[in-house]
Amino acid sequence: MSGNSFGTLFKLTSFGESHGKAVGGVIEGVMPGLEIDEEFIQNEMNRRKPGQSSITTPRDEDDKVEFLSGVFEGKATGTPIGFLIWNKDQRSKDYSNIKDVYRPSHADYTYQEKYGIRDYRGGGRASARETIARVVAGAIAKLMLKQYGVKIQAFTSSVGPVKVEKLYTELNLDDAEKNIVRCADPVVAEKMISYIDEVRKDKDSIGGVITCVIKNAPVGLGEPVFGKLHSELGRAMLSINAVKGFEYGLGFEATNLRGSQHNDEFYMDGDKVRTRTNNAGGILGGISSGEDIYFNIAFKPVATILKEQHTVTKDGKEVTSTVKGRHDPCVLPRAVPIVEAMTAMVLADMVLYNKIYK
Amino acid sequence: MSGNSFGTLFKLTSFGESHGKAVGGVIEGVMPGLEIDEEFIQNEMNRRKPGQSSITTPRDEDDKVEFLSGVFEGKATGTPIGFLIWNKDQRSKDYSNIKDVYRPSHADYTYQEKYGIRDYRGGGRASARETIARVVAGAIAKLMLKQYGVKIQAFTSSVGPVKVEKLYTELNLDDAEKNIVRCADPVVAEKMISYIDEVRKDKDSIGGVITCVIKNAPVGLGEPVFGKLHSELGRAMLSINAVKGFEYGLGFEATNLRGSQHNDEFYMDGDKVRTRTNNAGGILGGISSGEDIYFNIAFKPVATILKEQHTVTKDGKEVTSTVKGRHDPCVLPRAVPIVEAMTAMVLADMVLYNKIYK
Amino acid sequence: MSGNSFGTLFKLTSFGESHGKAVGGVIEGVMPGLEIDEEFIQNEMNRRKPGQSSITTPRDEDDKVEFLSGVFEGKATGTPIGFLIWNKDQRSKDYSNIKDVYRPSHADYTYQEKYGIRDYRGGGRASARETIARVVAGAIAKLMLKQYGVKIQAFTSSVGPVKVEKLYTELNLDDAEKNIVRCADPVVAEKMISYIDEVRKDKDSIGGVITCVIKNAPVGLGEPVFGKLHSELGRAMLSINAVKGFEYGLGFEATNLRGSQHNDEFYMDGDKVRTRTNNAGGILGGISSGEDIYFNIAFKPVATILKEQHTVTKDGKEVTSTVKGRHDPCVLPRAVPIVEAMTAMVLADMVLYNKIYK
Amino acid sequence: MSGNSFGTLFKLTSFGESHGKAVGGVIEGVMPGLEIDEEFIQNEMNRRKPGQSSITTPRDEDDKVEFLSGVFEGKATGTPIGFLIWNKDQRSKDYSNIKDVYRPSHADYTYQEKYGIRDYRGGGRASARETIARVVAGAIAKLMLKQYGVKIQAFTSSVGPVKVEKLYTELNLDDAEKNIVRCADPVVAEKMISYIDEVRKDKDSIGGVITCVIKNAPVGLGEPVFGKLHSELGRAMLSINAVKGFEYGLGFEATNLRGSQHNDEFYMDGDKVRTRTNNAGGILGGISSGEDIYFNIAFKPVATILKEQHTVTKDGKEVTSTVKGRHDPCVLPRAVPIVEAMTAMVLADMVLYNKIYK
Repeated sequence: MSGNSFGTLFKLTSFGESHGKAVGGVIEGVMPGLEIDEEFIQNEMNRRKPGQSSITTPRDEDDKVEFLSGVFEGKATGTPIGFLIWNKDQRSKDYSNIKDVYRPSHADYTYQEKYGIRDYRGGGRASARETIARVVAGAIAKLMLKQYGVKIQAFTSSVGPVKVEKLYTELNLDDAEKNIVRCADPVVAEKMISYIDEVRKDKDSIGGVITCVIKNAPVGLGEPVFGKLHSELGRAMLSINAVKGFEYGLGFEATNLRGSQHNDEFYMDGDKVRTRTNNAGGILGGISSGEDIYFNIAFKPVATILKEQHTVTKDGKEVTSTVKGRHDPCVLPRAVPIVEAMTAMVLADMVLYNKIYK
Repeated sequence: MSGNSFGTLFKLTSFGESHGKAVGGVIEGVMPGLEIDEEFIQNEMNRRKPGQSSITTPRDEDDKVEFLSGVFEGKATGTPIGFLIWNKDQRSKDYSNIKDVYRPSHADYTYQEKYGIRDYRGGGRASARETIARVVAGAIAKLMLKQYGVKIQAFTSSVGPVKVEKLYTELNLDDAEKNIVRCADPVVAEKMISYIDEVRKDKDSIGGVITCVIKNAPVGLGEPVFGKLHSELGRAMLSINAVKGFEYGLGFEATNLRGSQHNDEFYMDGDKVRTRTNNAGGILGGISSGEDIYFNIAFKPVATILKEQHTVTKDGKEVTSTVKGRHDPCVLPRAVPIVEAMTAMVLADMVLYNKIYK
Repeated sequence: MSGNSFGTLFKLTSFGESHGKAVGGVIEGVMPGLEIDEEFIQNEMNRRKPGQSSITTPRDEDDKVEFLSGVFEGKATGTPIGFLIWNKDQRSKDYSNIKDVYRPSHADYTYQEKYGIRDYRGGGRASARETIARVVAGAIAKLMLKQYGVKIQAFTSSVGPVKVEKLYTELNLDDAEKNIVRCADPVVAEKMISYIDEVRKDKDSIGGVITCVIKNAPVGLGEPVFGKLHSELGRAMLSINAVKGFEYGLGFEATNLRGSQHNDEFYMDGDKVRTRTNNAGGILGGISSGEDIYFNIAFKPVATILKEQHTVTKDGKEVTSTVKGRHDPCVLPRAVPIVEAMTAMVLADMVLYNKIYK
Repeated sequence: MSGNSFGTLFKLTSFGESHGKAVGGVIEGVMPGLEIDEEFIQNEMNRRKPGQSSITTPRDEDDKVEFLSGVFEGKATGTPIGFLIWNKDQRSKDYSNIKDVYRPSHADYTYQEKYGIRDYRGGGRASARETIARVVAGAIAKLMLKQYGVKIQAFTSSVGPVKVEKLYTELNLDDAEKNIVRCADPVVAEKMISYIDEVRKDKDSIGGVITCVIKNAPVGLGEPVFGKLHSELGRAMLSINAVKGFEYGLGFEATNLRGSQHNDEFYMDGDKVRTRTNNAGGILGGISSGEDIYFNIAFKPVATILKEQHTVTKDGKEVTSTVKGRHDPCVLPRAVPIVEAMTAMVLADMVLYNKIYK
């Protein structure tokens, strides 16, 4: 475990605070010769970018990645890829109001206690701005996975009480990119957007669920017993800001079932071993089975709301505090590409691991 | 990530198959001078042991741990603690029936595909027998954590449709050890036991939820951004056999709430910073806040059932298969100590990490 | 870095003290399907065994390895290989004489200071008995490397003032196993044996140099910039008890040369790129070039001598002390297989790493 | 082992090619609150800088480090420190001459074979320009170590045949910074400078030895059995460009001695345990003893010489080749700060490790 590295063979080491000079990282394990499609990478970053629609925070960032090493004439060389994204919008902020105040349900208090010092500007390292480095690494992981035909698609499946009731298999997942809330069910998407709008007007925030589906993953990914595919995926998801839960396959619903209901029977599909149902979520014993891998991620409502709240200061005084300005009433639309990025990183790492056995 | 190691500073490297000679491991990071209370460790193992009650598998194992190194005159020396548990019950088995048959929802197929070879006896490395090494390491982690006053208690909070409705704060967690299903609510416990009995008579199995509570964890545990306390806990839980989901604090329920409902306001309790509610589950920004840490783990119904099922063989033939003999209709009672053990290992690792900052 | 693990993909995690119950370890990264030739492994252990000849310590150990997991029907399964070697000769020792005395140039003092506690019997974890686990893992690494045609041969190239003057290319390295000092030059071997005999009669000990040659390593092994092949080899060698130095290629002698003398010019040998000289020692930029890899390892005289010495006790008293009983006057003959084992582990790890790029 | 990371708790992950956009890295494990003295860091970089004297390459680089994160109001925050140094001098180069030619004793051939692609400009990742990131991390490690009073000083102890004959204890190590060859013996320094001048006029290069001395290291540093202090130091040194050997204490000279000559007897210096001699080089059993730690590092003559040499091209043609332009006839003066930086990183890592045991 390392606080700032993710992955073992395909590995991101990231750095950067919300309002420091830059956010960036070092990516290792990129296959030499891989074409680094900068347009694709930038597009992934745009999907995460603030200010992209009426339901996201208007923070104005270009979020343009600059590659510093490891790429030569458009291709990965096998040496580490250093990159950064400058923090343009950091200049004229006034943070005196949060300097000494522990915002409720933020990490101000725990960072201060752990390190004895913190960069309080915009949440510092605890800000979701950090995830931009994950999206860059995830985009490169996706480029690697494309060679194996692996497809990763996430979508918003609930926002507060507004939920997609259909199974993912009944949806066209490409529809998720056609609306600003990134919901694969166009009808539900409209309701979600209205609901988020309402929440914003209330100066409040709302949680929700993202569902992620991996199609075409090769059989054999996962490193039991401690590096099971789903435990690495769960860890990856839980490391994303505001995530409170992870389940794969039938997840918590499976706890209500009997083995005779839950077990997936095998059959032969030509010379391929398949299962008639996929309650398992494409993973058996921590190893991918070739069926679709799917999982849900629970996001809490973001802590930043524009209402007055009671809290305390660094010096132990009780105060009331109201945040002013911009905020994301619902992080899910922007979290969709982050979920995909982390998923891609886990799979890229596992694909590299699997080469060792051949 | 390593398939067979868990933890970084407090680290278990484990080995062993269900029906090989022995299961065991190497534990690093145990504080030199720590008293290795073998009676306590053995007691933890007895809690996990098969055959301990009418609702668990009758596999007859002594499960007595033998320490081989790293302990001198009853104390840890700071050198690695090697240990093993002999597999006594492995002798006279006949596994010819499962040698070539992929049991539904087991790992037979995926292990075979990944490695091209497998020890099919009793599930090999994929068997939950492997978790015995975790219980040994977890018991030692608990001994370390005792010095900080940290208390870890898990209990069965649902078995199929039978659920504990009370909050954990309304229960006496010590009650969990007073009934064979390890439920902290004595009334619900009785219902669970009856329900499991029914399931067993149906030759079936049933899933459920375990809730784990950590009291008195020091403020500051967790290594953001990739080693957040809850992402390491989630990964730990998801690495346990049959686990399908993890949530902490309000978990998936939080997705229905607004920020104004979910946020935990700070107040001063004497000179201590506390929160009035604890929806967060004791972790802010991936770092422990000093409030109780609590989380739920979803277990699927175990795959082994005594009913006839359709499946395929290694050679691609479709067959029907019926497992004979013993099985656990519900793994949760025996999984409670495993959950606690993995929790203790995560915390011990984090406690050691935290020393670095001082 | 981990105190008790060596390697990343091919990895040994070892445990055990000189006079604890057992020495052993866990080996990961062994290719599934590899035949585990136990006779070969035992033979490697016999080469390291005490009491094998008139110039080694007569400690009576069977040193028979017992595999506990990861091997099924004679083949590696891809799961971790747990193993141990019982310490038979540990029973009736009397260590009261060294319990509180810090033996000069041993690790008694530093272990006590570092950990605050130590298993003083026979040097505990600091004893070279620990290396037996390395020989087991190294033997398995050799079995893996055989598939690539890689050949590793080490030999004693000096004992005190008695030195092999010929280049390794002028020797038949197979000759090393034909004499008890493991010197590849039969004439010098005789002199070494006489010299060691003389030293033993003086109740003294003597140092020396081991040279190791790797033939047929594939081009491309090594992970620059921090995992250069020679830095991993150096680290491996320096981790062996009593080693004081490591040099590869011309080593320290290269410091006297000019670039025009030291550079190895390339030429074409058919369609193979070769160098006319091999001053580099088969490694360029930290990556194997396909030429022979060769290096020297300096061993100090072992600290245990049977003469009276001045020293201090744990309580700070100055005393004189004389060790009684058996000792190795020169460790080199028994260190030869350990050098080979560590070399094999480094190469096996690098071979696995290299698969990632394909 | 990781190709681009060094250290475990105090850790540098570096990136960058000689003629890419920038060289940089991410530093983890810096104690929160540590003052980041940028002037000191810049001074360390200036010691390594090309063009600093008449005997170094005139490559014109500002080599000014830019910190991007992890530092707030002049202090480390405990979050990762991202940094970079722009490669200013990369613009107008013409590398067509080395694009397809494997320069003798360079890494061109092995990189091409390993990765199938390489950034050939100026040696790419294999260039010693990469070491600039090490100097930044090493400078911060030095700032940490200052708090413990640890002092690290390296100096050039031989250049080809010109050698310092005195023991380091007879020299004033501060003298090393008073001459351009960084030799602690002023008389020998003059001879070295003349000798290097001569070599340069011959269009040749020359090797040499650097000696490094660590004073005041606390007792107890080192993580046996695989993370012995000297094996980590050796690995660190061997990872530096052009290094061919490492020895500590008496090193290779110890191989000629008997135990009775080499052993260091303990005595009491007040209430402190000391040794009368220090042949061991301050390390016993892989753990620092409190005595001075000292070691030698062998550097080969750099491969770049301005003479005509025979070699081959990527396409397998034999050619002659002559490098034109600037080169370092002797890398040792500029390598002195790199040696110190790597030493500081090893010690900082070990100091953090040691906190775990308390």
